[in-house]
Amino acid sequence: MMVQKIRETMNGLRGRRIHHVCFVSCGGSSALMYPCKYYLDREAGNLASDVYNSNEFIHRNPANVNENTVVILCSQEGRTPETVEACRFARKKGAVTVSLAMVEGSPLEAETEFFIRYGHYETSDPINTSYGVMYLLGAALVELTGNASPLDKMSENLIALAKVTERTKFRAEQDSLAFAKSCKDDGVIYALGAGPDYSQCYVFCNCYLMEMQWINAIPIHAGEFFHGPFEIIEKNSPVVLLLGLGATRPIEERARRFCEKYTDRIFLLDAAHYDFEGVDANHQGYLAPLVFNAVLRRYSKAIAEERDHPLDTRRYMHIVAY
Amino acid sequence: MMVQKIRETMNGLRGRRIHHVCFVSCGGSSALMYPCKYYLDREAGNLASDVYNSNEFIHRNPANVNENTVVILCSQEGRTPETVEACRFARKKGAVTVSLAMVEGSPLEAETEFFIRYGHYETSDPINTSYGVMYLLGAALVELTGNASPLDKMSENLIALAKVTERTKFRAEQDSLAFAKSCKDDGVIYALGAGPDYSQCYVFCNCYLMEMQWINAIPIHAGEFFHGPFEIIEKNSPVVLLLGLGATRPIEERARRFCEKYTDRIFLLDAAHYDFEGVDANHQGYLAPLVFNAVLRRYSKAIAEERDHPLDTRRYMHIVAY
Repeated sequence: MMVQKIRETMNGLRGRRIHHVCFVSCGGSSALMYPCKYYLDREAGNLASDVYNSNEFIHRNPANVNENTVVILCSQEGRTPETVEACRFARKKGAVTVSLAMVEGSPLEAETEFFIRYGHYETSDPINTSYGVMYLLGAALVELTGNASPLDKMSENLIALAKVTERTKFRAEQDSLAFAKSCKDDGVIYALGAGPDYSQCYVFCNCYLMEMQWINAIPIHAGEFFHGPFEIIEKNSPVVLLLGLGATRPIEERARRFCEKYTDRIFLLDAAHYDFEGVDANHQGYLAPLVFNAVLRRYSKAIAEERDHPLDTRRYMHIVAY
Repeated sequence: MMVQKIRETMNGLRGRRIHHVCFVSCGGSSALMYPCKYYLDREAGNLASDVYNSNEFIHRNPANVNENTVVILCSQEGRTPETVEACRFARKKGAVTVSLAMVEGSPLEAETEFFIRYGHYETSDPINTSYGVMYLLGAALVELTGNASPLDKMSENLIALAKVTERTKFRAEQDSLAFAKSCKDDGVIYALGAGPDYSQCYVFCNCYLMEMQWINAIPIHAGEFFHGPFEIIEKNSPVVLLLGLGATRPIEERARRFCEKYTDRIFLLDAAHYDFEGVDANHQGYLAPLVFNAVLRRYSKAIAEERDHPLDTRRYMHIVAY
């Protein structure tokens, strides 16, 4: 059971006085850590945390990374060179390293102090995916550094989430087809969200649209939207807007009110439309990004089919040297 | 003298045990704080720091903001509603608030514990601008929380920077015209940078291009570039690429090598081409963003003239309710 594995990992940290967490990864593996930072920000009063791209982490070389720091890293195949290097670098600085990958025996596993293997999102329950492991680690870190014990609750809620994701499928299918038909020829697509949901704007734009579809896409924080980017919005601007269930939903609601006035093309993912039965109310906001992720994967599949541009087409990644 | 004002402010903090800084603002006023976080990350081993959009800060409500936290806020006119509210919110949580504005007697000044007035970038020396004040605050925080005393050195280097910025004008003028002529009809422009320089990609895209020119523009971290966004690059993709002088330059160099191969349209701002005489080598990387900012303002002026779209044209900001 994944929760047992996480508990074992945390037991390994018991002797250390941890007061700083660094989330260090690249691209989609980095974005899946944002919701965990959000969770720690709200639940861990004794912890500071940072999110860095792996190469940024190495070169920036933060002075406050030391034996009181946990560095959490993730790489699907465990062989992203910058992330492997960042792990080695973090250990040299005395930090505890906890790394995630989908496979065993990778270079990342060879460098890290603690290793957790996660399952593929298509074949695993949410709790066993990279996102699930991150939430469990978050809850475990709250236990390690404070007086609360949220790990079992988090585990229960993640188990319940499997059915939520399952129940979104029909609606997601319908919505994704509408999105794909409408946006297949757009020159640029905007994605807005706040709090933990912003992570999904980032993944959707950078990975699913820019990388996998060669469509220009701009992830915009729904609060920052009003301090520059919103001036670009016209009647036909396509906006994918995430409405989560957490404390930052009012920021997204404000963006929604604006967009409803000034563009006719909002593609709304409202987590309030999903059936979260079985998930505690105070966990729904934290876990919504995982559901958004499943839904947005459908959006990317639909637009890929509509455009006849398979999601695994690349011109540079793992093809040329860079 | 600005350095004296900063010293007075810091004296007001002497009694507090500060170990956390939150940079809380919106848009361009937020982006100007990223280089200060970068500086603290490298120089302040006893400090944690976070950057939040003002509304995100309020709703996220980080649990580790308390009487040991300094919250730094900035709003040009001191009346950005979210930032004023964030200041009030931070004080209620017991944090020390230090706010910056260009005018006196604003709502932000009324809410904040400490206030610093800065000068307009067009009529003030770098040290007296919002960027200058942020660097001084950074150095003062290092003094407050550690054993080093970098404030006077920082002040000297900021004074020397006036001439650097002055000396970039001729080159910036030439380069900006080339950029403007080439990019005036582009559907989307990319801006790449790492470390403290990324702040200038953010401002350039979100404020100077999206807000002031209604041109789609995507700020991309030069390290994240290789984990998704780079797949969009084609022979005619316009890329504004910043090459700074700090520890993160190798990340930008890598992006440069890639872009030189796969697009014919790189607009390179290489700080190594600017004459930094008078600025200590170990400060050049920290301060380069301030010089990039002056140069990129020229770029925005040039493209505004080329497109006959004045920089102060708005359709929503301060015009409609939102």
